[in-house]
Amino acid sequence: MDIIESTTQVNNKGNGCGGFFMDLNKGLKSKVMNVAECIKKTGKDDPRRVIHSFKVGLALTLVSLFYYSRPLYNGFGVAGMWAVLTVVVVFEFTVGGTLSKGINRGCATLLAGALGIGGQHLATAFGKRGEPVVLGALVFILAAGATFMRFFPRIKARYDYGVVIFILTFSLVTVSGYRVTQLFQLANQRLATILIGGATSMLVSIFISPVWAGEDLHNLVASNIDKLANYLQGFEQEYFHCSEDKEKSKSALLQGYKSVLGSKASEESLANLARWEPGHGRFRFCHPWKQYLKIGALARECAYKIETLNTYLNSEIQECLEFKCKVEEPCKIMSSESSKALKAISSSMKAMTAPSAAKCHIENSKTAAKLLKITLETISVDDAELIAIIPTATIASILEEITKSVEKVYESAHELSLLAHFKNNVESNVSPEKPPPQILHRGIINPLVDIDKSSNTNNNADQVEITIRDIISSESPEKVENVPSKSCAVVNIIDFVKLRIFHKSLSSSLPWQVPQPQQCIAYR
Amino acid sequence: MDIIESTTQVNNKGNGCGGFFMDLNKGLKSKVMNVAECIKKTGKDDPRRVIHSFKVGLALTLVSLFYYSRPLYNGFGVAGMWAVLTVVVVFEFTVGGTLSKGINRGCATLLAGALGIGGQHLATAFGKRGEPVVLGALVFILAAGATFMRFFPRIKARYDYGVVIFILTFSLVTVSGYRVTQLFQLANQRLATILIGGATSMLVSIFISPVWAGEDLHNLVASNIDKLANYLQGFEQEYFHCSEDKEKSKSALLQGYKSVLGSKASEESLANLARWEPGHGRFRFCHPWKQYLKIGALARECAYKIETLNTYLNSEIQECLEFKCKVEEPCKIMSSESSKALKAISSSMKAMTAPSAAKCHIENSKTAAKLLKITLETISVDDAELIAIIPTATIASILEEITKSVEKVYESAHELSLLAHFKNNVESNVSPEKPPPQILHRGIINPLVDIDKSSNTNNNADQVEITIRDIISSESPEKVENVPSKSCAVVNIIDFVKLRIFHKSLSSSLPWQVPQPQQCIAYR
Repeated sequence: MDIIESTTQVNNKGNGCGGFFMDLNKGLKSKVMNVAECIKKTGKDDPRRVIHSFKVGLALTLVSLFYYSRPLYNGFGVAGMWAVLTVVVVFEFTVGGTLSKGINRGCATLLAGALGIGGQHLATAFGKRGEPVVLGALVFILAAGATFMRFFPRIKARYDYGVVIFILTFSLVTVSGYRVTQLFQLANQRLATILIGGATSMLVSIFISPVWAGEDLHNLVASNIDKLANYLQGFEQEYFHCSEDKEKSKSALLQGYKSVLGSKASEESLANLARWEPGHGRFRFCHPWKQYLKIGALARECAYKIETLNTYLNSEIQECLEFKCKVEEPCKIMSSESSKALKAISSSMKAMTAPSAAKCHIENSKTAAKLLKITLETISVDDAELIAIIPTATIASILEEITKSVEKVYESAHELSLLAHFKNNVESNVSPEKPPPQILHRGIINPLVDIDKSSNTNNNADQVEITIRDIISSESPEKVENVPSKSCAVVNIIDFVKLRIFHKSLSSSLPWQVPQPQQCIAYR
Repeated sequence: MDIIESTTQVNNKGNGCGGFFMDLNKGLKSKVMNVAECIKKTGKDDPRRVIHSFKVGLALTLVSLFYYSRPLYNGFGVAGMWAVLTVVVVFEFTVGGTLSKGINRGCATLLAGALGIGGQHLATAFGKRGEPVVLGALVFILAAGATFMRFFPRIKARYDYGVVIFILTFSLVTVSGYRVTQLFQLANQRLATILIGGATSMLVSIFISPVWAGEDLHNLVASNIDKLANYLQGFEQEYFHCSEDKEKSKSALLQGYKSVLGSKASEESLANLARWEPGHGRFRFCHPWKQYLKIGALARECAYKIETLNTYLNSEIQECLEFKCKVEEPCKIMSSESSKALKAISSSMKAMTAPSAAKCHIENSKTAAKLLKITLETISVDDAELIAIIPTATIASILEEITKSVEKVYESAHELSLLAHFKNNVESNVSPEKPPPQILHRGIINPLVDIDKSSNTNNNADQVEITIRDIISSESPEKVENVPSKSCAVVNIIDFVKLRIFHKSLSSSLPWQVPQPQQCIAYR
């Protein structure tokens, strides 16, 4: 898009007169190339733009042809130009936009026309001298009042165009009424031509590959959630796996979620337009568009946290690798499960099903957050390490906040699915009312004896070691050794994890049952 | 604004027929009250809105009166209505908006009119049968092409209205040209009336209490920075002092910075409009409006971090009070100095002076960040405490990131002051090139002897204890005891602080000179 900049740059390079013309030639060439590229990119980004352009051309040509045809022209005369004017001004990219403007224009014209005629009659009562004064005062009062109304947020959002047309029509009717005696005929002609122009726009907009604002909003919110999921997935790889093609993956990460940060304005305008649209495709007339704004706001809240998280990804502070290793597992699970939950919410939104598949991922991420707490409670750090621990600890802490945000997004998405009567996902056999069993891992709990320290530690008596395999089955945990590994459907990251956890907090915070330990001594 | 909701609520209360009418009466009353309150609030929020409404009324009445006066009417005829139409459509809240629309409308009408007449001539060459076909094709091609151009971001931002008017005028000229034989007269009349309407709008907009988009942008960015400063100031009190009227201060905190998060759209639209404005007040014609967008973006980045910080303020996790006490000082300084720096940037922006006063606060906050690092390096934590430390540590870490953000905001504000040739602040005697002396505290360094451990520790030999008083004066540190306390102009939080710091990192990272210790042994 930097047409002007590039031209200036090229022109600045010119040194000497011959060189200047050569450069000008080059500049022209590169300018044309730039414009061509820009056109290509704009069309490629959203092919509906090209179709929309053709639609506008078509609607205008239709109205013009109507104007050209002699029998119709004889009926309307010069007023036919209002049809052209209406098409140009009313035809918007989305159906909602076109309907909103068309209906606003029609209603405002009707109302202002009636008021204008009323004003005319009132003014004539004041005699030839008083008429212009009264008309002027009426125009002043109505215009000032209506302009002030445009500042009310609700009117601004929905009826702004209508108020403008109201002022316009009222002024025109009072002003031209003063001259044109055949006021009713004028009003009649104008209304008819506006109806023709508006109807042409609406019909072309709705019936030739329509762009629904509601569908756009639906897809925008879903894809925003998807972008957050992509970031969290990428973050896990970037931070814990130290992926090799760092630059490439980093830029891909950055591009995604950044656009979510500033999506408020477009979401709100789409929601405003979507309200005007009739039922279409999978959306009914009274689809709960407001709920999308709620989901969008919560997704943005999550994006703000991700933005903060991202600053730590790029920081070059020396980290304590030992501590990072210790919290790696819960952090990875939180990040990947949150990512999966967001992916599930996004894909269920796209499929218009209940986001029940996300529930278990959210439970998993919550369990991982508890796991993180337990890990932190047991980790021992040397004095000097604290400064090296804090970057990782901060990341872990922000990840925990992100899991909370993701849960909120899930809840509002679930609310949407109820409000909009999304069908329950048939593929997953889990009913949305009854959350899926919150089993993350099944394992065997082995009390451990640390012979060196068993003599002098008393409070370690409530510690156990749990050996966990990634298995979800109805088999009893004792048969774990015989069950093939990798049979887990919920979590597939960990194959074999050793965890040291406090027994006391265990039974309340973990989803599996812990048998009473017979002999529990610290394990180091 | 919840007129509709409140009416529904009131109506729902109605039980029985008499009650219904009473409630309807009440409902009407409350409805009217609501509307009145809404009008009052809208006017109070920005009194310029009321003035703007009167300005629109005035401009319209002026144009209408021009239309009423017989000698002028005889010159223009029905075309006079274009003047009314232009005023209604062109008159915007800001001068930039009015100028942008007016100039766009004028240029587009001129260009499209010329092209339309050219198209007319081309079409007549194809005979009576071919004419409508050629005209139709021309309208289709031009309308489709121009509509597609509206998707280019740069054209969308600056010339969107011009393109719409181009399509409109071209269609009208070709269409009506087919009927009206006096094409030139029509074009002439239309241009003249548009000029009259446009000129009236622009003159009223500029000369009757003008609302400059540039000034609005300037104030918006400055007040956004101010809001961030208020949050940081409030945060310090909220988190460390546990202020009593928590609810009140919290809501006041929240209201402020949240609006910064979503300010991108309004900043961009104001910057786009500001480009159209002539020099006014303290702003020249080529004021660097783009730089405001940069500052705004950096302020938003800071706001995202504050948003994350805010989640920790409300969290109810048990914190380790001992650790909180230890990091309280550097955190308080970081927060308060960042707040002061932002306040200084904001007020210097408002006064259009160089933000040199902020420099020393930024240096102080950076020193506090270093102090935090040193504190963290020396703090010893018990094993079990880590979980309780992390919330505070995260807050400290995010505060550190915020200080970095604030520095970036300062740098871009400084760049603006250079680009816009802001005058140097006369009140502060400090030149912007030479940063003020980075003195945070003055103190006495006393080597300490810890008799218990002096025998077996070798690497503790580079530790000292520094006793610090909050004094900035030219007096030598030895005279500190005689100088009255509270005489510090830069930092006034600490009255008497004891710090244990590593000597090695001290001389390089702290702003005051440390004498070589004669006998330095660990202090515990």
